[in-house]
Amino acid sequence: MLKIYGFNSQNNKKVVYLAKELGLDFEFVKVDLMKRENRSPEFLKMNPVGKVPVLEHDGKYLFESGAICRYIATLVDTPLAPKEKFEYAQVDQWMEFFTNHLGRWLNTLFFEKILRPFLGIGSPVKETCEEAEKFISQQMKVLEGELSKREFIASNELSIADIYAYAYIEQTIALEMDLSEFPNTLKWRDMISKRESIVECQKYFN
Amino acid sequence: MLKIYGFNSQNNKKVVYLAKELGLDFEFVKVDLMKRENRSPEFLKMNPVGKVPVLEHDGKYLFESGAICRYIATLVDTPLAPKEKFEYAQVDQWMEFFTNHLGRWLNTLFFEKILRPFLGIGSPVKETCEEAEKFISQQMKVLEGELSKREFIASNELSIADIYAYAYIEQTIALEMDLSEFPNTLKWRDMISKRESIVECQKYFN
Repeated sequence: MLKIYGFNSQNNKKVVYLAKELGLDFEFVKVDLMKRENRSPEFLKMNPVGKVPVLEHDGKYLFESGAICRYIATLVDTPLAPKEKFEYAQVDQWMEFFTNHLGRWLNTLFFEKILRPFLGIGSPVKETCEEAEKFISQQMKVLEGELSKREFIASNELSIADIYAYAYIEQTIALEMDLSEFPNTLKWRDMISKRESIVECQKYFN
Repeated sequence: MLKIYGFNSQNNKKVVYLAKELGLDFEFVKVDLMKRENRSPEFLKMNPVGKVPVLEHDGKYLFESGAICRYIATLVDTPLAPKEKFEYAQVDQWMEFFTNHLGRWLNTLFFEKILRPFLGIGSPVKETCEEAEKFISQQMKVLEGELSKREFIASNELSIADIYAYAYIEQTIALEMDLSEFPNTLKWRDMISKRESIVECQKYFN
């Protein structure tokens, strides 16, 4: 049995959505960041960086959501992680694109516009929002270009990159972003949002 | 033959150092970011995101340095990428720690303090430097804690995580950061800096 220690933030959603999509049996253990449970001595033994999510498997701990996603995809025989090396590398490449570029800036904008007011820690910082919006606009064009050529993020097959990316892209819904100039991205977002795994996982985050 | 299209920035160094460490035969093709060669139509066909490095292998292209590093480690039989799944995941976890945390903030500080003045695009932004320095200080403590328990980043064996991490950590030299409170990190940095692969690769970046 796997345990996923997490909270309702996007990095946790990536792991939980993927575990469900892969059909893995797991328990979700909520770590309350508001109560700073992630800074407790017990938590820091699992992850010295003090961040969620953490995966527990056979008494061992793994942190960093990207590493966890890649690892759990090795626990089952799944078409979501191609066996051919270069095909797998392309899946990995698009996961990294979301980690470093589009997903990163969507997380930044979500923090400024949704989390800051929610947590009562001030108004969105204008310069930060503008910087994020500039990069999101550029990088959404790249994504739209790719999704106009094929059905899924990395190829014509669903892969772990789609589930990973969705956890970032779904933030555009709460942000009420107008994506009408990105019709293929909207179609993809809609398709992934309706997957049973994604729908079922919402119970962990309410 | 592999081709690595890149420049002398840290994300490129990760890939070049690792290719050399793995004993791969490769050609380094300089992409001049100053001349915006990375925005040319030819380059955007290789990487629609317009960033370096890009790997060419058998006429196919791969971008994102993390994905390239993981991919090239599959091209040879190497102890640098453990075969046991969980051990590999721990290597991956520490690579992600550098991508998302310590390496990211070192890149930010390097940009502010070294690149900005070098490129003539203004003085370091005080708030950005302070934010980066705060996180670097926290995350160096985590790294030092780990390197006090074992010789290398992910285990007692050299792995791709060490080479990957070194490309970020070597920035502390140019930044003239005082690391005297991190003796195990200094020892590790010194050990990796003397590896033949690292020394030999400097020719690509001068």
